[in-house]
Amino acid sequence: MTRLVNDPAAFADEMTEGFVAAHADRVCAVPGGVVRSTETPAGQVAVVVGGGSGHYPAFGGLVGPGLADGAVLGNVFASPSAQQVVSVGRAVERGGGILLSYGNYAGDCLNFDAASERLRGNGIQVRTVRVTDDICSAPVAERTRRRGIAGDLVVFKVAGAAAAAGHDLDQVTALAQLANDRTRSIGVAFSGCTLPGADEPLFTVPEGKMAVGLGIHGEPGLDEVDLPTADQLAGLLVERLLAELPDDVPQAANGRAAVLLNGLGTVKHEELFVVFREVSRLLAEAGVTVVAPEVGELCTSFDMAGVSLTLTWLDPRLEELWLAPADSPAFRRGSLAVEAPRRTVTPDAEQADELPPATDDSRATAEVVAGLLDAVREVIDTNVDELGRIDAIAGDGDHGIGMQRGARAAALAGRAAQLAGAGAGTVLTTAGDAWADRAGGTSGALWGMALRRIGRQLGDSEIPDAATIAEALHAARTVITETGGAQIGDKTLVDVLIPLDETYRDAVAQGADGAAATAAAATAAEQAAEGTSRLIPRAGRARTHAERSLGTPDAGAVSLSLIARAVHTALSTTGR
Amino acid sequence: MTRLVNDPAAFADEMTEGFVAAHADRVCAVPGGVVRSTETPAGQVAVVVGGGSGHYPAFGGLVGPGLADGAVLGNVFASPSAQQVVSVGRAVERGGGILLSYGNYAGDCLNFDAASERLRGNGIQVRTVRVTDDICSAPVAERTRRRGIAGDLVVFKVAGAAAAAGHDLDQVTALAQLANDRTRSIGVAFSGCTLPGADEPLFTVPEGKMAVGLGIHGEPGLDEVDLPTADQLAGLLVERLLAELPDDVPQAANGRAAVLLNGLGTVKHEELFVVFREVSRLLAEAGVTVVAPEVGELCTSFDMAGVSLTLTWLDPRLEELWLAPADSPAFRRGSLAVEAPRRTVTPDAEQADELPPATDDSRATAEVVAGLLDAVREVIDTNVDELGRIDAIAGDGDHGIGMQRGARAAALAGRAAQLAGAGAGTVLTTAGDAWADRAGGTSGALWGMALRRIGRQLGDSEIPDAATIAEALHAARTVITETGGAQIGDKTLVDVLIPLDETYRDAVAQGADGAAATAAAATAAEQAAEGTSRLIPRAGRARTHAERSLGTPDAGAVSLSLIARAVHTALSTTGR
Repeated sequence: MTRLVNDPAAFADEMTEGFVAAHADRVCAVPGGVVRSTETPAGQVAVVVGGGSGHYPAFGGLVGPGLADGAVLGNVFASPSAQQVVSVGRAVERGGGILLSYGNYAGDCLNFDAASERLRGNGIQVRTVRVTDDICSAPVAERTRRRGIAGDLVVFKVAGAAAAAGHDLDQVTALAQLANDRTRSIGVAFSGCTLPGADEPLFTVPEGKMAVGLGIHGEPGLDEVDLPTADQLAGLLVERLLAELPDDVPQAANGRAAVLLNGLGTVKHEELFVVFREVSRLLAEAGVTVVAPEVGELCTSFDMAGVSLTLTWLDPRLEELWLAPADSPAFRRGSLAVEAPRRTVTPDAEQADELPPATDDSRATAEVVAGLLDAVREVIDTNVDELGRIDAIAGDGDHGIGMQRGARAAALAGRAAQLAGAGAGTVLTTAGDAWADRAGGTSGALWGMALRRIGRQLGDSEIPDAATIAEALHAARTVITETGGAQIGDKTLVDVLIPLDETYRDAVAQGADGAAATAAAATAAEQAAEGTSRLIPRAGRARTHAERSLGTPDAGAVSLSLIARAVHTALSTTGR
Repeated sequence: MTRLVNDPAAFADEMTEGFVAAHADRVCAVPGGVVRSTETPAGQVAVVVGGGSGHYPAFGGLVGPGLADGAVLGNVFASPSAQQVVSVGRAVERGGGILLSYGNYAGDCLNFDAASERLRGNGIQVRTVRVTDDICSAPVAERTRRRGIAGDLVVFKVAGAAAAAGHDLDQVTALAQLANDRTRSIGVAFSGCTLPGADEPLFTVPEGKMAVGLGIHGEPGLDEVDLPTADQLAGLLVERLLAELPDDVPQAANGRAAVLLNGLGTVKHEELFVVFREVSRLLAEAGVTVVAPEVGELCTSFDMAGVSLTLTWLDPRLEELWLAPADSPAFRRGSLAVEAPRRTVTPDAEQADELPPATDDSRATAEVVAGLLDAVREVIDTNVDELGRIDAIAGDGDHGIGMQRGARAAALAGRAAQLAGAGAGTVLTTAGDAWADRAGGTSGALWGMALRRIGRQLGDSEIPDAATIAEALHAARTVITETGGAQIGDKTLVDVLIPLDETYRDAVAQGADGAAATAAAATAAEQAAEGTSRLIPRAGRARTHAERSLGTPDAGAVSLSLIARAVHTALSTTGR
């Protein structure tokens, strides 16, 4: 149970503030995350890690000399936004380029990749290593699809040590990639976690059972078995990891391995030590030399009860990097002889652009648009708990809070731009940037893109007619389906977006005005959202989630239908 | 829920083994606990800490340069035995004497004090500082009765740093005592902890409530209030601590304080950081400068959900010691420039004594005694779960496991001595030493004393008659009542011991033989044990425990009655 919360929507930000207050000697806050409080030499590769919050010490606890230069901290269980990644990346870049490293999750890949593009656009070299250590999340033949769990730590450590040793960006990337290729983890869970503000766990494991391979956000595992003894658990974990050696490690005997025994949250140190006793015995029996093991909380999931074991098969280069000194809030090794100079944090150089010129017509439209953004904010505020609840059934429960952060930020930024004299198009693109930046996650990125695309279509000159709006909507649909990759029937917001787009276009083609077309589209959206509760669950989701989600609509689909109706109501009220 | 267990009776030992395997670079095992893996300079004061297991990082995680020299690790929630303290103390003593520091609990005081006597008997200087930081455990006027909780860390840190700085034993003691006098903690709990092997929590807090001042073993608190927000909790903790400043700290404003925000087990880092954000704001508002705060798990209680806040009001000497470098498995600060040489662990110099001479008569009696010890072991093994269950109602739930460890060790050691040719007295004193050493806790110490006393009364020459046995029993009764301090009616084993002793003596005085007297004493013991369920609960125990314990007999009383009956049955079977 996660109990100590103020406003759940503010949890991640308040946590970051408290974390920085507690570790002011090692980290300082920048927009989007935290960076080392010490300066690194000019020309050194900067290692930027990150992901959703709720996995401490991942990711902020791993920032410091010999480890990461900065961590991008997303909302609870949600990817940070591309803007956050760009902000942290710029704060730490020292002319040697940036390695982005993070666990392989769809939302993180989307946002970190978008950030890479923008950083490259600023003339910064960027490389990426996605951590894929969880052997239960995909078969060995599809290693690149696997999720990243506690093995993050070894990959980040190798990257940070390689950067500190003066390797260039390609070398650091190659060594971090080698560390990932040599890293295998397996996790088990005994109970799920409760997100801040939620009354119930995000997922559960039956009493007396252990879920093998369950992911750190409740992603599906392989199997449910009876609760083992500590020694039996050690046996299971070691056996599975020894059964899948990396291609270039022909046998376990005479191997050397970094070993992490990780507690997910409520399995305590005492239990971990009892399990580690047998893990170390079994590895010794298999002829494996354990190098500088770590036993503790290395990648958590709030109050989830679970354990993971990670082995990284070392070669001399990796071993040297694994053993190199490091000094972060949550991971320290050796001593860093030279006291590095303190960093002076300067605000991100990216200043707010001047407003592009706008006609009076477009400024009048901008006022309507700002009102609509406020209506969107209001409907999401009203429904935030319900959206969280239904997302917890079929997803990871963060949809309500993510939408709220996004819609609030968009409404505020849009209104500010409008009051500053922006045209309709700029109000929408500004709102889209703010949504993506504050909401994070996959849905935040998609909503940001959609608003920006609509804004670009509308521009800052003309009063858009219904046909222009239809085109803009269609463009937004296209960018979402192309980026997100979801098909109709996958039980996502695409199931609502496509009928909404087509109904609006058809109505306009048949001569309807904007108000009539919006009414028709809102009704179509509501019907389609309801329909997501009758569909076969989306491919690739957990069986347990699938079974539980029958009869529950998709939260993203519901959000879009609520927004469509709110826009229609707001337009009716204002007579537009 | 503590799930990852093999044999619950072996949990503490297996945990220590795993801990040492995980931290072989920093600690090594000695009988009774762990010591630094590095050598300290000759003449340096040795700081020995300790207590029951289940509070990681207290106590093993705090061993290393700049902190403790050794930690004595008791069984789960039970004091270590005096023998364990002696063993660890001898392993680390370097000619500068030993400071023993530990939380102020009855069992710990008993065993550490007994160890002090023995160490002084070996010519070693010993001082003691008991940690008494928990402001909820007794009024300020009775500070020395207060329990020790997370403030342990600051006291140990100051002591370790003072020793490393070369202060002598009196100076180290004075500084550690000053740190304790300047340290105040307050804890709250949301749920209890589950001991290894138990199906249910040792204690509970009603859903949606917070117990203010509840101890780390479930000792009674002050109050139960509704669950607060994170900020409200920070407000409560800070307010209570600022309301009780040390005598020599006239005001909070302009004060400097070491601050610990401690998670008891299942309150996670994210929540702690959200709380710390407000704690640091409130302290700043009160004019307090926070010096090197620690936010995390510093003194836990298995999976207990709770938080404690500790303030140590620093003066320049304490601040320097708080900030000095330290390098232990769970607490590191700064860098220790000089790599200390590795320690070579030598077995404790205290070798097994040669057996004192014994007559054939006494050797024959010794065979009977060894059989009785085995009967005691068997009855405790049979009833271990039930004893744990009833102790969990009125006590801390460790009685069954403690008795089992003690009785098993006593039976084995007694049999080994008998087979080696010892007389009855030596078999009993050997068994008593083993019982106290392995069981730990208060009851382990008392049972050990009782067996040793009986052994000394019987000697190694004569076949004891019923009158001799009556005298021996009476002597054992006297040592237990004088050491333990319990009165009849306090609902402890004394309520059984006194009628047992008196019934046996009366029967013998009236001409009964040993068998008849034993039968009468066993029956009296059973009646008396049953009677402890009807008494008013012992003074000073929790109200909640008191309410729950009405109708449940005291576990220690039941143990003694079971043992009396088992001895009677065994004597009947063998015809003695």
